[in-house]
Amino acid sequence: MATVEELKAKIVQLEMKLEAAQQKGPKRHKIDVMSSEVVDSNPYSRLMALKRMGIVDNYENIRNFTVAVVGVGGVGSVTAEMLTRCGIGRLLLFDYDKVELANMNRLFFQPHQAGLSKVAAAAETLRDINPDVDIKTYNYNITTVDNFQNFMDTISTESLIGGQVDLLLSCVDNFEARYAINTACNELNQCWIESGVSENAVSGHIQLVIPGETACFACAPPLVVASNIDEKTLKKDGVCAASLPTTMGVIAGLLVQNTLKYLLKFGQTSNYLGYSALTDFFPTMRLKPNPVCNDNYCKIRQKEFEARPKVIELVKEEEDEKPLHEDNDWGISLVDESANEPEAKTQMVDGISLEYSLSNDNDVPKSSKTAQDDVNLEDLIAQMKSI
Amino acid sequence: MATVEELKAKIVQLEMKLEAAQQKGPKRHKIDVMSSEVVDSNPYSRLMALKRMGIVDNYENIRNFTVAVVGVGGVGSVTAEMLTRCGIGRLLLFDYDKVELANMNRLFFQPHQAGLSKVAAAAETLRDINPDVDIKTYNYNITTVDNFQNFMDTISTESLIGGQVDLLLSCVDNFEARYAINTACNELNQCWIESGVSENAVSGHIQLVIPGETACFACAPPLVVASNIDEKTLKKDGVCAASLPTTMGVIAGLLVQNTLKYLLKFGQTSNYLGYSALTDFFPTMRLKPNPVCNDNYCKIRQKEFEARPKVIELVKEEEDEKPLHEDNDWGISLVDESANEPEAKTQMVDGISLEYSLSNDNDVPKSSKTAQDDVNLEDLIAQMKSI
Repeated sequence: MATVEELKAKIVQLEMKLEAAQQKGPKRHKIDVMSSEVVDSNPYSRLMALKRMGIVDNYENIRNFTVAVVGVGGVGSVTAEMLTRCGIGRLLLFDYDKVELANMNRLFFQPHQAGLSKVAAAAETLRDINPDVDIKTYNYNITTVDNFQNFMDTISTESLIGGQVDLLLSCVDNFEARYAINTACNELNQCWIESGVSENAVSGHIQLVIPGETACFACAPPLVVASNIDEKTLKKDGVCAASLPTTMGVIAGLLVQNTLKYLLKFGQTSNYLGYSALTDFFPTMRLKPNPVCNDNYCKIRQKEFEARPKVIELVKEEEDEKPLHEDNDWGISLVDESANEPEAKTQMVDGISLEYSLSNDNDVPKSSKTAQDDVNLEDLIAQMKSI
Repeated sequence: MATVEELKAKIVQLEMKLEAAQQKGPKRHKIDVMSSEVVDSNPYSRLMALKRMGIVDNYENIRNFTVAVVGVGGVGSVTAEMLTRCGIGRLLLFDYDKVELANMNRLFFQPHQAGLSKVAAAAETLRDINPDVDIKTYNYNITTVDNFQNFMDTISTESLIGGQVDLLLSCVDNFEARYAINTACNELNQCWIESGVSENAVSGHIQLVIPGETACFACAPPLVVASNIDEKTLKKDGVCAASLPTTMGVIAGLLVQNTLKYLLKFGQTSNYLGYSALTDFFPTMRLKPNPVCNDNYCKIRQKEFEARPKVIELVKEEEDEKPLHEDNDWGISLVDESANEPEAKTQMVDGISLEYSLSNDNDVPKSSKTAQDDVNLEDLIAQMKSI
């Protein structure tokens, strides 16, 4: 029979093993200031190197920004992980779903998390990855009346400085949630980027919405890369949409890349960018808002935008010249309006179609013939209605 | 003082806690046959849905394939995770590096893995994610003489059926390793896809190499999206390349998406696909092999390819017609050679440049003027030498 001393020794041994198992390994400690120092222990050296490379002027500003990610599924979870690894200041995560084994064909979640809420499971993993990021979770459906008001209040007050978030990323998988986000963002004058992946898993898109300046979700049906799949064949009992970690990883990558460009002001942020996986086709276009949009706040934002002098971004010069207007954070300048007005064009890039029709006519054109940069939505809708 | 019974009870309690901590949660069990059943517990339902969607004919064939991933860093680790979640049959992982906190700005590895070998850390995570995938690890540098021979032997015998791997993916970050892979693949007549991300983190590419049929790494300098960064400013003490989880995630996604298209025979596999993050520009092109390539096995493969009748892929018909040659797994048909011969063109897509010069002349053209689909490498090299 074991002595008391032997039992006590066994307890000490078990406690050490338990501590080791619970800690999983050395935890990463918090880091007060982002450093460029090139040592193996610095998780920010490869990001701060973007400054020396001339890509980003002040990478460390990333810590000042708050981004809301709505939907923490195949696209949203990878989006949140990328932002966390980039060292974003604060992340707000919204979802009301649970992790299931059926999600394991996408990146991020792991089988041992099955049954946990997506926001709780994501927050735990993300805090392990980068404890410097302030992560807040909201485990509810934003489309119910009470929750919608809480969602509006949260995105308008929960930034690091107690105001509106700097950008909202829509990573939801259904029409109602997109519509709720659109309604909230128009009312709050909140910039956001919509993202989506088709039900056949081989195409996707991102679309930047600046209220009043670019088309909102209610201005026009979101553009999707033509897939030739009849959506009516879906939604039957025992039928699910297809998904791939590849397509969702690419869309999350493009979404966060454009988020970094938008927040840190480098490169060109795309208004609309599509991805068709079967042919490696990536259409881009600009979408103007619809003057007869059904969303009243959209029309208010459009009037506000029209009342402002028209602006374009300054093309970055070879040499660092002083900006024309030094008090202008965005590097923009006044230009003659007519010089900035593109020709009205009425057809979409080949291979692109609308996700749904604004009219009652279901015969949405699947694709049109000529490539172009800018689409006049009024003409587009008139064209659709005439079919 | 505690009694023996109390101590024993404490031991039982600690053992249970330890077991729970070590297991982390419910482990996913192995699954013998991929099922399309739409239930929350089926990790393959969203992949098998690709069949009903008409995208892939036999998704479950993924289990028959073996893919080698060389380099398990920012691109290779995500590549391996995507293939694991897609349910690939066998993965061979090659790397000789250790996980560091400085890698935490890319996806996949976590801080508690710092200090572990990349292949061991990756294999542990991947087996947790999908125990159905057979993962083999090779923790060595493939460029040394002994290891190179072992590498050659491994990729030519370690497929699931004891032969050559079905595809090799190069996710390495240096010239020597790419050259070693190219040498091995030309000798073994092994198809592979090269990938790379620029040192300023904002561009990348993938390139499919079919020995004798498309340009190999020695035929021509790999094409890179112009970055205007002087590589001589790098490689100094205390200076590291920049990297972003976004760019690496996009490149990994495009790499694995093209791997799936190549293995499962759907869509069009790109020969060369670039990504320029600043402008969301994705050039594609086809590259023919160089008849005076320095790699002798490349020239042998070219002669073998020339001796075969020229082929093109059948365009998929609206209705399922019988293939012209039923014993032809690849759905290819004989065509008149002249009909398949593109016009010789001598300029690259705008915004693309060569990574290095084959001649001793360092004045590589940074970009050229017209977009095109096919590049004649002989003309290109002649053009470069004439500068």
